[in-house]
Parts: sequence; C-alpha cells; structure tokens
Amino acid sequence: MSLAEFALIDRIRARSKGRDDIVLGIGDDAALLQPLAGHWLAVTADTLNSGVHFPPETLPADIGWKTLAVNLSDLAAMGATPAWGTLALSLPEASAAWIDAFADGFFALADAHDWRLIGGDTTRGPLSLSVTAFGQVPHGQALRRDGAQVGDDIWVSGTLGDAAGALALWQRGELDVTRPAADAETEFLRQRLLRPVPRVQLGLALRSIATAAVDVSDGLMADLGHIAARSGVAAHVDADLLPCSTALQRVLGSEAARSCGLQGGDDYELCFTAAVTSRRRLLALSGELGISLTRIGAMLHGEGVHCPGSGAVHGYVHFLSPPMAAGDQS
Amino acid sequence: MSLAEFALIDRIRARSKGRDDIVLGIGDDAALLQPLAGHWLAVTADTLNSGVHFPPETLPADIGWKTLAVNLSDLAAMGATPAWGTLALSLPEASAAWIDAFADGFFALADAHDWRLIGGDTTRGPLSLSVTAFGQVPHGQALRRDGAQVGDDIWVSGTLGDAAGALALWQRGELDVTRPAADAETEFLRQRLLRPVPRVQLGLALRSIATAAVDVSDGLMADLGHIAARSGVAAHVDADLLPCSTALQRVLGSEAARSCGLQGGDDYELCFTAAVTSRRRLLALSGELGISLTRIGAMLHGEGVHCPGSGAVHGYVHFLSPPMAAGDQS
Repeated sequence: MSLAEFALIDRIRARSKGRDDIVLGIGDDAALLQPLAGHWLAVTADTLNSGVHFPPETLPADIGWKTLAVNLSDLAAMGATPAWGTLALSLPEASAAWIDAFADGFFALADAHDWRLIGGDTTRGPLSLSVTAFGQVPHGQALRRDGAQVGDDIWVSGTLGDAAGALALWQRGELDVTRPAADAETEFLRQRLLRPVPRVQLGLALRSIATAAVDVSDGLMADLGHIAARSGVAAHVDADLLPCSTALQRVLGSEAARSCGLQGGDDYELCFTAAVTSRRRLLALSGELGISLTRIGAMLHGEGVHCPGSGAVHGYVHFLSPPMAAGDQS
Repeated sequence: MSLAEFALIDRIRARSKGRDDIVLGIGDDAALLQPLAGHWLAVTADTLNSGVHFPPETLPADIGWKTLAVNLSDLAAMGATPAWGTLALSLPEASAAWIDAFADGFFALADAHDWRLIGGDTTRGPLSLSVTAFGQVPHGQALRRDGAQVGDDIWVSGTLGDAAGALALWQRGELDVTRPAADAETEFLRQRLLRPVPRVQLGLALRSIATAAVDVSDGLMADLGHIAARSGVAAHVDADLLPCSTALQRVLGSEAARSCGLQGGDDYELCFTAAVTSRRRLLALSGELGISLTRIGAMLHGEGVHCPGSGAVHGYVHFLSPPMAAGDQS
C-alpha cells in the first residue's frame, strides 16, 4: 500500500458514517459487525468496469451512484434491508478530485438507505469498481428465484428498456453522458442509464406477496429466464403489455422501444411472480409507493421464456464495445 | 452478463461446497447466510491486480491461492474463524483452462479452512481479483490494532522478508515465478512469495493472549506503525532480533536480508503485542502449532516505530513496476 493509497482511503473513510451495529469500522485488518438476531445475511457482489459496464467518459459521481445502485438492487430483489458493504476500487492514478466526486454519488445513495461502507481496498490499475453488499432479511422471508408456481402472474415495476435506449443513443453518438440532454425525453433516458434507483422499498413490501423475484439487470427475457429455470416452470410474456416509457417510444419509436424493453439490461426494476389472488394488494402497493406495477404475463407448465411475436430474444451482453486493449497481463 | 460469463461462473460454482450455515449459495440475486449467535462478523476486502500485486506471468493456480490467502490473513489478524466470502474476478478473456487452474489454487486453500465462496461476479477486463472475506469471532474476543499497552512485548510469527527477497530476485531476472528454482533456498523464497500461508490457527489461539495484532502485508515497519498509531504508544524494535530465514540470508546476504525483513511486505505473518507475563504461554503455543514466535521489541511511551541503526525505513509500496498503460479510462 503506497502513501497515495492511504490518502485516498482516508478521503473515503471520512465520508463513511457509523451505525449502532458497527462495532469497528474501516481502519483495522477487518471491520466488526453485529448481525441482527433472527435474520439471515444476504450477500451480493457486482463489479463495474470502465468501457464494459459504463462509457469510459462517464462522470465519477455517476459511476459512484451506479456502483452501489446495482448492488442495492440485488438486495432489493431478495427482500433484504441494506446494511453494510465493502468497495474495491482500482484507479489508473491517485486523484483526490476523482475520489471526491465518486464519493458524492456513492454516498448520496448509501446515506439514503442507511447503508454503510465498512471496508475496502484501493489499488492502482484500470478503472474498476467492485462492491460486496450485505443486507438482512427475517428468517424465511427472503425473495428467491425458485418459488414461482404455475398460474402465478408475472409483474414488473416501473418501465423497461430506458437504459438500453440511452445506451443505443450513446453508441450512435447521439447522447453525451457527461451533460444534460437538450430535450426532456432524452434526458429522462440518460438519467435512467446513469442513475438507476434500486427498488429497495418495493422489495421489502414484496416479502409477503411475491413468490419469486429477480432484478432486471441483464434484460427481462434473461432475468425472467432465471426465475423460470429455478422454479421449474415456463414464463409466458405478452409483449403488448410491456411497460415502456413515453420517452423511450418517442425517441426510438415503438418497435425499437419494445425490443429494448424485452432485451435491454441495466434498468434495475424488479420482475416478480405472485398469486392471482394478490392482484388487489399489488395495485394498492403501487399506489402507496408511487411505483407503477404492471402485469405482463403468467407462469405455466413447461420451461423457458415465451413471448409470441417478439422474434429472437437473448439476454443482455455487458460489453459496450470490443474488449479494451488489455495488454499482456496473464 | 454474456453467455461466456455464465459458463465461467458455472465452472466456479461447481467447485464451491456447501456448509450448514449457507441457506442459499451462488445462483440467486444474493446468497443467504445464517451468522453464529453470540459472535461478531469480521469483514475484510483485498484486491490483487496483475502487474501490481503479482508478476504478470504468475501461474493462475498461484494467483488463486494468493488471492484468498491475503484475505484469510486479515481474518487471522482479527482472531476470526474464516467462514464465507465473495470473489470479483476480472479477466481479459473467457478461458475455461485459466479458471480451472485458478480454482485449483483458490479452493485448495478455501477447503483447508472450510471457507466457502458464496457469490461473486465475473467480468471482462484487465486481470484483477477482489475477495471480500467474512469470519466470525465471539463477542469481545477480536484482536484489534488499538490495544497495545506500554511495556508489552512485540512478537512476530515465522520469518520476515522472504517474499520481498523473492521479488527482488524476480526484478533482477534471477527468479522465474512459473517454475521451481534449481536450488532449495531460492525455491523456498519463491514459495513464500507465491503461496503465503495465512496464520489462521495462530490468530485464533492469540485471542486470549495478544493485546493487539496486525498481519505483515505492507512490511513490518508500516504494519507495526498501525498498532503504534492506533494504540497511542511507540514501538521499539531491535533489528538484531528480526527472524530472517537462512535461505534469505544465504541468497541475499545478511544486510539485504535485514532490510527485506524490516521493510518487505507480502509475508503475511502476524505481528502482535502481548504482556510480559504471556511469554511462557507464547513459547508453549509456538511448540504446539509448530510456528516460530520471536520477540523483537517492546511498546514504550511515545509514538512511531523506532529501530536504531536500521536507517531510513518506509512501508512497502505495492507497485512492482511503473503503472500499467491503462488507456484513457476516466
């Protein structure tokens, strides 16, 4: 660990708040935590690499937000309350300004969920960010992928395809991720790509309602495929019911919007299954939380994900561009 | 997530064993774990980057071992029993052969400590490996850095400087890290660099003896400096008492050996403080565990780390070479 590395860690440590269940925070060989009695620990880990998971020019504050958001989204999909986590940060050069801006985005989201950074590592290397996030969920109440039943409805929160739409605009050179777009619709899509909102409150509320859940990170078809495979049933989706935003449809057209909605990743909405008898509760919940919930299909006997008329459908591939020149490193 | 990424994760998942306290392992949005009642959770995170923390040509099995070893060493320094953890693996290209060899080294060490991989992420990018490791320690029994008292002895396990010695040979072109060395002494040093053994059993035994502990990852002077700073006392080391291996002294000479022992990192021995009244117990423990324990100094009033006659001493800097060409990434 170099002196520069120590200085960077200090800048991050200064932004990390305490919590009653943190016995010892950043600064020893390990942090010490007091888990809640009667709860399971939910643990997830996701990495973002520059040029693979976000455009290389993305502003550090947006990278900070998204780095944590994708992990809190996994906790949301388990019905877990966010608690603590670690950050492994690899940076090409030690830059206090970069770290401070990154921390602005990262801790804005962390603080909103009382999630605390309790450890990590800063190393020199190509820009890469790995978070391991812990949440807690009462015994037996976790949302898993394997509980969907034949006859269950399939639901999704919010709108799908917005992030993929923004990425498509960026790839065509029609979107600058570093500044607000001139028109409101493109700006909405840009925000959906850069600042996804993990559906934590929704995940907690779904503990007693959903039979299975997943977050939409790799695309609806791929992620719903996980529920189908692990539950041993088939998912049938009606593409006409897919919730696509007005912004996406106006900017890309309705055909491309539907394709983004089915296949596009990075929206971090929740896709879940629930019994038909839960419809009324879910519509009430939608009103309470101010999050739209849309019924898009049903689980039936069989296997796989079926979406008549949608053509060939695949999971989202997390590579924005040809692999970066990685040098001779292994 | 690409199909190739799924396939790599499957290869790793196939090597991950279960444990009674793993409610749900790899394969959902998050793993679910049942922490031990009456215990704190110890959490640490360390990243290794190719060309920064190990020579780029290092064999994948050796990288796998070391990736986990450096993290278990942090748990050892807390007196925590290793339990579970996550791995974020960034690879330039999807290679099943590389993953399998990496897993050979990684799981050899994991299995030896009943440590279980319960999640992670595989992404494309320059070779980088981040582990977040969890251990458990009974309430109030953790080894911290801040408990050293004036008058305490300073102890270290094993020998110091071997890994730095091997690195020096490699930098001079006198050591090939990819194959056994011709002579036994150089081979000993090579193993110390590539296959450090985390002092887990020692850490557990020290719970009731040590007043403070740290693992020697950045060099004795730097790491002992953490104990001194956080405990508010000064550390006085007698360089003549430093345990350097015969191999290191024969290969590098006694002057260079001492310098490696004081400043060299990557040995992953434990440095700890204990009351003078614990000397007999520690010598007995050394015999029981078959690990040499050497008393190298004492904690006194004041601050900093003092080592008369050793000249200028600094912490270890984890950069093998000039920073890698990282491209235009941020």
